[in-house]
Amino acid sequence: MSVLEQASAARIASFDLAAATRAEKDRALLLMADRLVERTDDIVHANGVDVATARENGTSEAMIDRLVLTPERIAAMADGLRQLAALPDPIGDVVRGSTLANGLELRQVRVPFGVVGMIYEGRPNVTADAAGICLKSGNAALLRGSGSAFSSNAAIVSVLRKAVADAGLPADTIQLLDATSRDSVKELMRARGLVDVLIPRGGASLIKTVVEQSTVPVIETGVGNCHVYVDAAADLEKALAIVLNSKVHRCSVCNSAESLLVNAEIADSFLPLVLDELAAAGVTVHGDPRVAGYSDAVVPATEEDWGTEFLSLDMSVAVVDTLEDALDHIRRYGTGHTEAIVSESVAATRRFVAGVDAAAVMVNASTRFTDGGEFGFGAEIGISTQKLHARGPMGLPELTSTKYIVTGNGHIRG
Amino acid sequence: MSVLEQASAARIASFDLAAATRAEKDRALLLMADRLVERTDDIVHANGVDVATARENGTSEAMIDRLVLTPERIAAMADGLRQLAALPDPIGDVVRGSTLANGLELRQVRVPFGVVGMIYEGRPNVTADAAGICLKSGNAALLRGSGSAFSSNAAIVSVLRKAVADAGLPADTIQLLDATSRDSVKELMRARGLVDVLIPRGGASLIKTVVEQSTVPVIETGVGNCHVYVDAAADLEKALAIVLNSKVHRCSVCNSAESLLVNAEIADSFLPLVLDELAAAGVTVHGDPRVAGYSDAVVPATEEDWGTEFLSLDMSVAVVDTLEDALDHIRRYGTGHTEAIVSESVAATRRFVAGVDAAAVMVNASTRFTDGGEFGFGAEIGISTQKLHARGPMGLPELTSTKYIVTGNGHIRG
Repeated sequence: MSVLEQASAARIASFDLAAATRAEKDRALLLMADRLVERTDDIVHANGVDVATARENGTSEAMIDRLVLTPERIAAMADGLRQLAALPDPIGDVVRGSTLANGLELRQVRVPFGVVGMIYEGRPNVTADAAGICLKSGNAALLRGSGSAFSSNAAIVSVLRKAVADAGLPADTIQLLDATSRDSVKELMRARGLVDVLIPRGGASLIKTVVEQSTVPVIETGVGNCHVYVDAAADLEKALAIVLNSKVHRCSVCNSAESLLVNAEIADSFLPLVLDELAAAGVTVHGDPRVAGYSDAVVPATEEDWGTEFLSLDMSVAVVDTLEDALDHIRRYGTGHTEAIVSESVAATRRFVAGVDAAAVMVNASTRFTDGGEFGFGAEIGISTQKLHARGPMGLPELTSTKYIVTGNGHIRG
Repeated sequence: MSVLEQASAARIASFDLAAATRAEKDRALLLMADRLVERTDDIVHANGVDVATARENGTSEAMIDRLVLTPERIAAMADGLRQLAALPDPIGDVVRGSTLANGLELRQVRVPFGVVGMIYEGRPNVTADAAGICLKSGNAALLRGSGSAFSSNAAIVSVLRKAVADAGLPADTIQLLDATSRDSVKELMRARGLVDVLIPRGGASLIKTVVEQSTVPVIETGVGNCHVYVDAAADLEKALAIVLNSKVHRCSVCNSAESLLVNAEIADSFLPLVLDELAAAGVTVHGDPRVAGYSDAVVPATEEDWGTEFLSLDMSVAVVDTLEDALDHIRRYGTGHTEAIVSESVAATRRFVAGVDAAAVMVNASTRFTDGGEFGFGAEIGISTQKLHARGPMGLPELTSTKYIVTGNGHIRG
């Protein structure tokens, strides 16, 4: 089937899914989980094909580790689906409501988007995750995973579709798209009218391509060049802990900090401490000339460094004269993901929070907290760095639209 | 200045506007209103240039009437700005908030988009309206009006910018783009990173162009091929009033009905009545063969008719055997704007409301009620027919994004 044929089938299936009750959807999710576990051997076998191909192609062991499915990893996928079943259903929530002066009853109610396209790379566990999140939010899912995981994804989707059908919902609400060529991505990006929203999850170049070429509305997930600003009024002990945690807790993810800005007033007391601890943690500091004065280990920062999402044990560090200079720096180089201030001053934190344009602003907390799980959303589809529709960690409600329902008794407009 | 230079200036101005209090913004709106009235003569004079050019170009008198500004129309523009000042400020609203298990305080707060681009046609009063709505919601406005109203728009924007500056806010929050060529639209559509959202208001071809070519996120406003479905369990008196009101109250607007679907069970009793009344109101009925059996005045409906937004005294009319057939028809030809059911059956209205995928569903009420004013929003930017971000009539909150503010006391992730 072509992508458009798959999208058409998904659209038709989405009508029934939209009308499904929470009980029906949860039953499907639990059956999906059980079947994944039952069919572990088949999935591991299919995964073996992908792993063998990856080895033949000389893929690094780190990448192969991301690709490998073990019985434990499949059990974790199943647990993720069971957790989704336990979450409240966003569909049908009344977002607002009122009775108008003329007696018309107005309700704005959450409804599914309809058909959601997901384009993602890497790990095959995203397949079960994305399928489950879409099903729980009442959306049909068109899944375009990585070519390197196609055999694994096909096995997973086959199990999930059968489970959905056995639970009495249409199998076509979950569909895997061909991942052997770029054409399926192109067709998906042009399926406006059949596909309601596209969510690309992956590297910066994938996201850029989708944002620039898609006529289907896109939710951009994100690049995070996150900053920690240590204010003149910072508690230096808190600042040290927050900088270290933001940088080294898990440096390969979008909510890790890439840049440190230190107010000049406390540079003498703070920079020697933090440079020592960063060095001890294996972090290479790319510093401006003022920072370089505090340690021989500092590498001179290039203009490019300030705008780079390292995703590694590297950090750009600058001294700024004022909070306003920190804001200017962040406006110039930030990606609107997460920015943090460390300060005991109410006035300073208030100004920073107002002046920074980002999905999340942390006050005396690590940038690593920008996360659907940490925010208590239960499930996370990704972290949106755009301003339209959803911004920051996206939970189930972010995968919905709304509908106005207006009830009268023969009302006409005068 | 080029569009990109204007957008850059707007972006810088938007930082100050985002930090402005409601009192500061309202003061600017009231001053904008006063100045429009004071400068009526200048604006009428500038408008005279546009009107003269339009006459030279052989523009129809109906179009010229839309273009003409009189002291009364300018006073109405000023009143619109004063009404905006009276509306609550969406900025700073806490959308949700909680304290996490670890003591982190989470707030999701409304913030402006930043820079909003508006592309619109026709009436110059939209210029003041759009500028005011953007200012109240804390957004800088890049206004790209019609070339035929350029002199009028330039005069209005000049007055508004001066008022904004005199009220202590940056004049660059309101900017008129060159309307003498299509280039400014193209540049605006490619200003991703400088412009946060584009709102096209105008004909279907303008909207289609923007949706397909813009890399800036778009809020699509709408085409309305709205249906009224008269169910087997309808009160025929209510149905008659609703069909007539939906069609003829103001046939040139997007929330007027273009199509009538009548359940076969009541066709014999209802169609003769409604066809008579529609004829008496001057409506040309494009009917299917079953409808044609009830009146010689019925024009045979073409396949194209079912999908047409007539915006005139024309209506397509079909007999459907069941409510499900009505839903199928609406799924095939509807544009997701407004769909209405007339029925006294709870089961039927429940099924229709759930089965129809549209921004608004009317139960025993005219389609004409889909309107920001009728919904009590005070101001309306347009009616969104997309599912992302905003759906249905858009008020001030729909011109905002959100930001998570997370406050801790040295919190790090374990």
